Amino acid sequence: MKIIHILFYFIFFSFTISHASINDFCVANLKASYTLSGYPCKALANITSDDFVFHGFVAANTSNSFKLGITTASVANFPALNGLGISAMRVNIDEGGFAPMHTHPGSTELIIVVQGEITVEFVTPTSFYSKALKSGDLFVIPQGMLHFVVNSGKGTAAGFAAYSNENPTVQQLDLLLFANKLPSNLIAQTTLLDLDQVKKLKAHFGGSG
Amino acid sequence: MKIIHILFYFIFFSFTISHASINDFCVANLKASYTLSGYPCKALANITSDDFVFHGFVAANTSNSFKLGITTASVANFPALNGLGISAMRVNIDEGGFAPMHTHPGSTELIIVVQGEITVEFVTPTSFYSKALKSGDLFVIPQGMLHFVVNSGKGTAAGFAAYSNENPTVQQLDLLLFANKLPSNLIAQTTLLDLDQVKKLKAHFGGSG
Amino acid sequence: MKIIHILFYFIFFSFTISHASINDFCVANLKASYTLSGYPCKALANITSDDFVFHGFVAANTSNSFKLGITTASVANFPALNGLGISAMRVNIDEGGFAPMHTHPGSTELIIVVQGEITVEFVTPTSFYSKALKSGDLFVIPQGMLHFVVNSGKGTAAGFAAYSNENPTVQQLDLLLFANKLPSNLIAQTTLLDLDQVKKLKAHFGGSG
Amino acid sequence: MKIIHILFYFIFFSFTISHASINDFCVANLKASYTLSGYPCKALANITSDDFVFHGFVAANTSNSFKLGITTASVANFPALNGLGISAMRVNIDEGGFAPMHTHPGSTELIIVVQGEITVEFVTPTSFYSKALKSGDLFVIPQGMLHFVVNSGKGTAAGFAAYSNENPTVQQLDLLLFANKLPSNLIAQTTLLDLDQVKKLKAHFGGSG
Amino acid sequence: MKIIHILFYFIFFSFTISHASINDFCVANLKASYTLSGYPCKALANITSDDFVFHGFVAANTSNSFKLGITTASVANFPALNGLGISAMRVNIDEGGFAPMHTHPGSTELIIVVQGEITVEFVTPTSFYSKALKSGDLFVIPQGMLHFVVNSGKGTAAGFAAYSNENPTVQQLDLLLFANKLPSNLIAQTTLLDLDQVKKLKAHFGGSG
Amino acid sequence: MKIIHILFYFIFFSFTISHASINDFCVANLKASYTLSGYPCKALANITSDDFVFHGFVAANTSNSFKLGITTASVANFPALNGLGISAMRVNIDEGGFAPMHTHPGSTELIIVVQGEITVEFVTPTSFYSKALKSGDLFVIPQGMLHFVVNSGKGTAAGFAAYSNENPTVQQLDLLLFANKLPSNLIAQTTLLDLDQVKKLKAHFGGSG
Repeated sequence: MKIIHILFYFIFFSFTISHASINDFCVANLKASYTLSGYPCKALANITSDDFVFHGFVAANTSNSFKLGITTASVANFPALNGLGISAMRVNIDEGGFAPMHTHPGSTELIIVVQGEITVEFVTPTSFYSKALKSGDLFVIPQGMLHFVVNSGKGTAAGFAAYSNENPTVQQLDLLLFANKLPSNLIAQTTLLDLDQVKKLKAHFGGSG
Repeated sequence: MKIIHILFYFIFFSFTISHASINDFCVANLKASYTLSGYPCKALANITSDDFVFHGFVAANTSNSFKLGITTASVANFPALNGLGISAMRVNIDEGGFAPMHTHPGSTELIIVVQGEITVEFVTPTSFYSKALKSGDLFVIPQGMLHFVVNSGKGTAAGFAAYSNENPTVQQLDLLLFANKLPSNLIAQTTLLDLDQVKKLKAHFGGSG
Repeated sequence: MKIIHILFYFIFFSFTISHASINDFCVANLKASYTLSGYPCKALANITSDDFVFHGFVAANTSNSFKLGITTASVANFPALNGLGISAMRVNIDEGGFAPMHTHPGSTELIIVVQGEITVEFVTPTSFYSKALKSGDLFVIPQGMLHFVVNSGKGTAAGFAAYSNENPTVQQLDLLLFANKLPSNLIAQTTLLDLDQVKKLKAHFGGSG
Repeated sequence: MKIIHILFYFIFFSFTISHASINDFCVANLKASYTLSGYPCKALANITSDDFVFHGFVAANTSNSFKLGITTASVANFPALNGLGISAMRVNIDEGGFAPMHTHPGSTELIIVVQGEITVEFVTPTSFYSKALKSGDLFVIPQGMLHFVVNSGKGTAAGFAAYSNENPTVQQLDLLLFANKLPSNLIAQTTLLDLDQVKKLKAHFGGSG
Repeated sequence: MKIIHILFYFIFFSFTISHASINDFCVANLKASYTLSGYPCKALANITSDDFVFHGFVAANTSNSFKLGITTASVANFPALNGLGISAMRVNIDEGGFAPMHTHPGSTELIIVVQGEITVEFVTPTSFYSKALKSGDLFVIPQGMLHFVVNSGKGTAAGFAAYSNENPTVQQLDLLLFANKLPSNLIAQTTLLDLDQVKKLKAHFGGSG
Repeated sequence: MKIIHILFYFIFFSFTISHASINDFCVANLKASYTLSGYPCKALANITSDDFVFHGFVAANTSNSFKLGITTASVANFPALNGLGISAMRVNIDEGGFAPMHTHPGSTELIIVVQGEITVEFVTPTSFYSKALKSGDLFVIPQGMLHFVVNSGKGTAAGFAAYSNENPTVQQLDLLLFANKLPSNLIAQTTLLDLDQVKKLKAHFGGSG
């Protein structure tokens, strides 16, 4: 019966084999130059099951001033995500902790709470949208919206998040405003914050000027 | 000091208010006709915080022959996902259970295991990619790949999945082949399955012909 | 010789006429529901040359606290831009004036200075990019970047801007933080601003809470 | 054994049935308003096998001054193509016939010659690309390129073409220049054609002015 | 009169020449690394008319167990298709022959029958769509749908197909299930096929395990 | 207070720093090979404020037969535009001057008149759209439409244009038809122009054949 097999290969495989790595998935070759559509593809012959797995997606340390632990899996450390438009994050927040105001330009965030209570809020020029979430609640933060997350309950809170982008970026507001060398008076002028406030936070976040 | 506020509104708001609902998010009006780019947008004035929350993302019942429980949150039951390119699924599988062979055309699936052991496999014409995953492991199934999931450990296994599509579809192989009225001999011919096998599974899955 | 004409019509026009309005341009029917890909198309028969023109793209009034005048032409007031991925803005700033910190999620801004001196700056978590621009200088602000613009010279400054989106939105930072009803202590906590500062600006921008 | 079937339906179908018509295909409802992403979808319950078939894709009449017969199947007469990014055309050209200079903005054309000899040429500002094609030859005309086709052999020539767009448009050069009411002197000035030439062709193609 | 020409070049060509190869077409440099958006572009200076032609798009040999002959022209052997979103296939099937169950993830297939009778069918979880096609019939198989093709008439049948992708892939069901080393019992479990059936087809298709 | 700063870096920066250059902007490395999605990205460490500025966007010389001066800023000379979908052009036209018939495939043009009177017209197979524009008027030319621009007033006219593409191309009609080596009789046949007319313009524009 092997004859069917052999003939079958003859017919279909010129069409199939050489392309299998191209359209159906494209594990990133992280050593190649990044382009606007992602990384070039690793050769099919070098791809194994291990490429599609990410180990260590576990709770991160929270011993910091935000009481916040974040573990991320995106194309930079999980190259199989290249071109697939998705990535993941795991968050745990000790009681009283929070993630400060930030945005993810071009990446929607879908949060799943699995422990404790987490309040998520995003703001628009005319309103804000907010919810105290418990285990079994989902919340979606549309791409580019300024938002924050706080542990609003007792004990540690925990959740998972997925992003609609294999390579989400984060723009944390305090770092944008206070961690650079942009002159304090310009920041004060264009944010309408008091100059003293700007200088105080520049000192906190390592900015100068 | 309110004068600043008033003037500010005058300048910016003709530019801002009317558009805020359009580009920044577009909660689906599910009563309108679906188009290739999703649903038309619900009016901004009718959008509240509740639109961005999904309750009841909890473990589903597993008392079925697959010992499989699935809960999904996609645009059809969580309209805020409209246009955002992401959705979520929660899966729990009792010991010995599994999700049979299926594909999600156009949707990549990123699975996070949180309990027990789950083995995920996807197949290509020339190979297969597979891993036994434990809590803290992620696995990605590129869009359109035929795959299955089994509880390969002791006790119940559980996980979450995210899809790179707000409206993922599922094509379960047995339903494709055996739940319709396509003549059994045609299925046998074009799958190379034995006719008896086809007829037996047609009886299982409700197909005729 | 009209016979060529007549035959020609017969051949080509079944192919041409009915579609001309569809793919080649799609002037918005602003009365129809907005979708994720823009507005439905106005009927070809109702489209005239006037649809492709926008009058009154002139300098706006600057008698406000920012000494800033902005005129915009986007799909909402220039429906021919529907689906074309471009729009325009005209800005004039009196001496000492400025446009405060804001972002345009999903819209790149390309600024052309035609009078005076304008300094444009955008910030990232680790750096800032800035230039004092004079007549004949262009500056590009990539989509989603937090930025501001100041008149850094003598007399009135003026420029034009184009956006890579027919429907750009603006997220002005002060409005995001201080014009809503989000409790002041939550804003203070998650921005690390002092509570007094938050309350002072809430009073300015009309927020409460 | 039907119990497997019944349970299976319970698990998977809430996920499957309601969406099958949405993401996997979207047969156009041609009575609804066209949008930039195509037509809204016909209800799944009303879709039959006939929706996916187009009859009468046969050679068209060539008794016209171009000796050219064209049959097209695009979304307007084959609604199942909606959103699928492909359409087809069948061409036959009698000896001495041709298709005059035209472009398809946004649609690549892939031509297959099946009878006779067809010469296809497209032009760029600095070069032209051309080939006399016989049965078994393919030629690709990249989107937006000005091109023409001539029967360069003996007897009737025939071919098929596919377009990378479910709704290709055609911009025939003579119709663009000579079938409208744009003043002849403006056309002469901006094409550098002689005024007499412009007026002569305006008379042919039904233009005035 | 050459002076017009010379001046013209001076004005327009700095704008034109260097870019002509970039946006208007991008013939693949197949030696460079593939990226998610296709291959890098061959230098314009090296492109000739021959790049846009594919010879030998003729009927393939059918002396195999499927009585099936397939000739394909996609970016891998016709590099001018790079980025243009289209490719072609020619099929001929001897009496009694067929193409077995397969899918093309991400590629819609538009089939034109030119000889004999071909029956095309695609299946969904709840239905199937099918038609016996004769010369002059078109059929469209939406991207990702499981389908097969049989010669349902007398004598040889023949047709052409176009794909909405310059690089279509094929996932043949028997190869997915039976040509790899995935353990037979796992396949049997997750397809609900009998283990004997799986082992029998593994033997046919060269799989093991 | 620096302790906050230090901890903050620890938490967020593994997530932030390495990616900032990738998704948020991608200044072109013009020495690398162009791909269908643009140029690979310049390393973040080498990017300065100067990358985002273009100097010399000033009026170009008009001492040519068209009395036309054009200055362009696109990705080839302003690499920061890479991937951002926008570019700019500055035009000045002396009295009696004009820009001849041309198209920009894939690029919409939005023109702002700032001095004098400019008449813009684009043509379709069944109509034309036209307007005499004065300072403060905008006009949009949808992508791929054949159009021209004339100074229709007294004295010099001037304007700016933006394109919905970082790399717009221009297809000038006379160059397409008369600057190449395509045989004159073929051009005459397929445009329906008189052979004498074709030969006369071939002499002007440097074509042969």
